[in-house]
Amino acid sequence: MSGTATAAAHPARYPGAPAGQPTVDTWQEAPHNRWSFAHLGELLPTAAVTRRFPAAPEAATNRLDALIPRVPNLLERLEATYTDAFLVLRHNQVLAEYYRQGFAPDDRHLVMSVSKSLCSLVVGALVASGDIDPAAHVTTYVPELRGTVYDGAPTNRVTVQHVLDMTIHIDYSEDYVDPASEVQTHDRSADWRIRRAEDPGNTYEFLTTLRGNGTLGTFQYCSANTDVLAWIVERTSGLRYSEALSKHLWSKLDADRDATITVDSTGFGFANGGVSCTARDLARVGQIMLDGGIGPGGRVVSEEWIRSIFAGGSTDAMAGSSFSRIHPQGSYTRQWWCTGNERGNVTGIGIHGQYLWLDPQADAVMVQLSTWPEPDSGFFHGLQNRLLLDVGDALDASSTQAPIHSKEHIA
Amino acid sequence: MSGTATAAAHPARYPGAPAGQPTVDTWQEAPHNRWSFAHLGELLPTAAVTRRFPAAPEAATNRLDALIPRVPNLLERLEATYTDAFLVLRHNQVLAEYYRQGFAPDDRHLVMSVSKSLCSLVVGALVASGDIDPAAHVTTYVPELRGTVYDGAPTNRVTVQHVLDMTIHIDYSEDYVDPASEVQTHDRSADWRIRRAEDPGNTYEFLTTLRGNGTLGTFQYCSANTDVLAWIVERTSGLRYSEALSKHLWSKLDADRDATITVDSTGFGFANGGVSCTARDLARVGQIMLDGGIGPGGRVVSEEWIRSIFAGGSTDAMAGSSFSRIHPQGSYTRQWWCTGNERGNVTGIGIHGQYLWLDPQADAVMVQLSTWPEPDSGFFHGLQNRLLLDVGDALDASSTQAPIHSKEHIA
Repeated sequence: MSGTATAAAHPARYPGAPAGQPTVDTWQEAPHNRWSFAHLGELLPTAAVTRRFPAAPEAATNRLDALIPRVPNLLERLEATYTDAFLVLRHNQVLAEYYRQGFAPDDRHLVMSVSKSLCSLVVGALVASGDIDPAAHVTTYVPELRGTVYDGAPTNRVTVQHVLDMTIHIDYSEDYVDPASEVQTHDRSADWRIRRAEDPGNTYEFLTTLRGNGTLGTFQYCSANTDVLAWIVERTSGLRYSEALSKHLWSKLDADRDATITVDSTGFGFANGGVSCTARDLARVGQIMLDGGIGPGGRVVSEEWIRSIFAGGSTDAMAGSSFSRIHPQGSYTRQWWCTGNERGNVTGIGIHGQYLWLDPQADAVMVQLSTWPEPDSGFFHGLQNRLLLDVGDALDASSTQAPIHSKEHIA
Repeated sequence: MSGTATAAAHPARYPGAPAGQPTVDTWQEAPHNRWSFAHLGELLPTAAVTRRFPAAPEAATNRLDALIPRVPNLLERLEATYTDAFLVLRHNQVLAEYYRQGFAPDDRHLVMSVSKSLCSLVVGALVASGDIDPAAHVTTYVPELRGTVYDGAPTNRVTVQHVLDMTIHIDYSEDYVDPASEVQTHDRSADWRIRRAEDPGNTYEFLTTLRGNGTLGTFQYCSANTDVLAWIVERTSGLRYSEALSKHLWSKLDADRDATITVDSTGFGFANGGVSCTARDLARVGQIMLDGGIGPGGRVVSEEWIRSIFAGGSTDAMAGSSFSRIHPQGSYTRQWWCTGNERGNVTGIGIHGQYLWLDPQADAVMVQLSTWPEPDSGFFHGLQNRLLLDVGDALDASSTQAPIHSKEHIA
């Protein structure tokens, strides 16, 4: 049986909202308007009317003194990689920070597929609470996916763990610049591009169209997997994905600002790539990873969830991937990239150059939010990996380095 | 000559952006992406991932003790008028505050046509700087409006003052619930409703379609007028309207939060009704009105601009309007409603029940942010006017009343 997503099966935008409501054509009407007048950005594009003018400093914010003597050409390398924000947190204190001209420290930046690594922590939280079993079949939680690649019946049943580790063969091209690719259909279904008449009406419906050859166990990077995880999160938490991300992660950070997530026509958050947040708040997520899963607001995931990520996934599953060319012992597990290098670096990575880079050896978190001209460039990945490794080396050589502003204990 | 708006003539979303760029189909591409990755909410709907969970208190915020003994049935009257937020600022201090269950004090609420009264202050600022002359013809600033109702050549030339006071006959039905009305075409052009094939592509283009019979001097409430003012603001400031609203007003408030404004496909802010902000920040705007045009961040408009508003406009122009039925000496000038009553109340009013009510006699600002089931209800207007008048009377009777939290000097 081929599953069909129906709006009725999804968490409501407000308690009691009828299925699929409100829409761009109904938000002004009662009873929807009592919700929509307070959440208009979920329905319509909105510009900030900033409380400061100009909104962002006209000069770059450059507090790199702690690193410049030890990292060759640091500023030039940040500029060459189209860096909008860069932050190094060491021993849970800000050691260095940079924001390009026109981008303010409290501005949110799209983090693209680093969003996947955030989803990992939401899933991990629901695993810890017993609501999600990684060994369970996907279709146990989302029967709408029966008959799709996420079913696999009767032979190779697909589990949540397969989705977390992206070890499913899916007829899905992640070629971002090919209009015929599935990733562009995925974008259009989520209103990230203008929808065509023949496209699925929303992300849930898109996910039910996916097929594969039944092979499991080989890594295939596929953004759809994360949206399936978000669907499982909604089913097991009873919350919208945006709410679950708040409840299980963002509210535990002592965050400076709300994050945002793009939503499709049904209000489903684009878990695979739609989160925007500040560099400092993203660094706080990294600190939770270093701290064994505990944040200022309490435990997020089990220590075991964190340990499994730092231990890395299957290098065999990963063989031949572009990540392996940079990191020969590299792997992907639970929505995180594991370098397998001597430093034990683990990272979230977004297209066009966002990194949430963890350096357990140096007790450091590095956030680099770039916007490259190309989505997935070996050249730029190479430059940024080299930079982040050099910063780690510099930290090793300066273990007594004082933070630049010790009062700003950000987490 | 009938004017035609071209995107080239409008302020760019970022310095050097090609006309009309970026769009929902191009925002991921260079060079647009460097701007759009930091401003994604301007292009796509986004949900907040709140730093607190739940996002808003599960109980109402009720700090009405200073008023309850003096205003009969206050709480019941707030609930009966679908009030989401209510705030009384007296002598520039918070005297009373209420937020319904599920709506937080730092949540933004759509203020609909109170947005018009905010636009008044931006225009006033540009009048004070000499950039806008209220006596000048509209087409001096916006030649694209030649041949439209905003031209009036060769006989009854339309001036900026006519637009400010809404004394232009326009073939425009402001019947919010009639799909054939011009206000709904206006909405669709601005992406407030789903656009139809025959609709103008954006707000600028919609404005160039408007025609009238050439009569000037009689009040006709028409939301298009405010968008014409915003177009004049863009032309004379060189800024996008959202930026001008920040530069000339929001950055002068010492605001707690950024406001937001909905934007159309070109990024043009919906000046007539698209602003969302917190109750406290809106109260700060009211305080500037009471303070003769000066805010914590400096002068916004001339004292004369404020004085003209409190003096009121033409009651003759207003004769027979629904506002006159509630306020017999009522008038409308410079995008504010003037009651002409003994208290000298002046107010901004949004459909579905938002009020920014000024009470110079009591040195008080009252903000009521409601979401009625109907857009424009004489019944609900009557209830809210009565309530705000009663609060004013209660303040007169309690001139020594201490504020409930004197440290929260909000402006």
